[in-house]
Amino acid sequence: MKVIKVAASVMRGNEKIALENQAVFRNNNVFVVNIMGSPGAGKTTLLLKTIEALKDNVRIGVIEGDIATSHDAELIHAAGVPVVQINTEGACHLDARMIQLALTHFNLAEIDLLFIENVGNLVCPAGFNLGESARVVVSSVPEGDDKPKKYPGMFRVVDAVLLNKIDLSGVFGFNINTFREDVRQTRELEIFEVSCKTMDGLSGWIDWLMGKRSAVGY
Amino acid sequence: MKVIKVAASVMRGNEKIALENQAVFRNNNVFVVNIMGSPGAGKTTLLLKTIEALKDNVRIGVIEGDIATSHDAELIHAAGVPVVQINTEGACHLDARMIQLALTHFNLAEIDLLFIENVGNLVCPAGFNLGESARVVVSSVPEGDDKPKKYPGMFRVVDAVLLNKIDLSGVFGFNINTFREDVRQTRELEIFEVSCKTMDGLSGWIDWLMGKRSAVGY
Repeated sequence: MKVIKVAASVMRGNEKIALENQAVFRNNNVFVVNIMGSPGAGKTTLLLKTIEALKDNVRIGVIEGDIATSHDAELIHAAGVPVVQINTEGACHLDARMIQLALTHFNLAEIDLLFIENVGNLVCPAGFNLGESARVVVSSVPEGDDKPKKYPGMFRVVDAVLLNKIDLSGVFGFNINTFREDVRQTRELEIFEVSCKTMDGLSGWIDWLMGKRSAVGY
Repeated sequence: MKVIKVAASVMRGNEKIALENQAVFRNNNVFVVNIMGSPGAGKTTLLLKTIEALKDNVRIGVIEGDIATSHDAELIHAAGVPVVQINTEGACHLDARMIQLALTHFNLAEIDLLFIENVGNLVCPAGFNLGESARVVVSSVPEGDDKPKKYPGMFRVVDAVLLNKIDLSGVFGFNINTFREDVRQTRELEIFEVSCKTMDGLSGWIDWLMGKRSAVGY
């Protein structure tokens, strides 16, 4: 009983800071995308390919969330965009307060599009509003076609699904119809079948992203 | 401050029930293995192959943990062993209390070896003692060779690592030496390179498991 109350108060505290973050993003015309997914789904590689496609036209920033290491942030840094690494040191998700602290390290006037790569986890990050403009999940073919059914909480909160490593659907006997149907049972969502290796499907995702950004008037 | 205190009290509460579970397992000579890993790492398939190899000689039971669905439990049931499905309905890990409740559905006098398949999550399950005899993590090649470094908490608490889908290490450019070295930096652990598809390496895992069980005198 006591635990539940405190959890609710933690969530209220997070929600309050998320709204503050949201206001900061609006005031600076920054479109913010929270990228979630299992460990190894391909979030960082997707980010690198997306940066490559967009960086000549859009000023990008990245917040990298990991339990440990700054490996992913180094890859992003090498791609030539400003990046801040958050090490959660054990925590299973990013929260709004961590983002608020990370934001002090950016000049937001010089950023149009901010990506937040969450901790690799198909469960917990879904429960924490960061003040972002859009949420996406990267699901990958090797994880199996049953993930939307087994982890419905994540698919309920996102605005789009990137089904990555699609070039390997034959190798893994992945049933795309099952996957699509199970996502649809949870919520009507855009699903992009992509491969960050062959570049298949990435233009659809990038068009969607830019469309979403235009839609909010940035 | 308040949150941390309550979290500690939750953990103390869990620890107390875990010790009760442990006593129940000892009194009934049941060897209990907690299987953890990311979504789609191959935990259920490993379990099915292990059951197939052992079920003529050892009486097996299974507790299946999932956020939603009883899909995995149905597969285990079809393999002919008693199984209880726990649906956490959103919770990101199993805890000792859930196991205690599940145990009321087994006749422990008729079980030698109990597998607990945890919720697919490379972070949170590592923090919760269930009273088990051994813990293993299933890591899979498509997740990438950087997982031990990026999720050290999990590799710190397990007794062995099953590196699954090893038949695809070429396809994914997976560096096994990097993986092994990073595990070693965290802790000296037995690593089994296995493929539940080709059956490679499974006998080593099963020998280890039976050896562990003999070592505690069951």
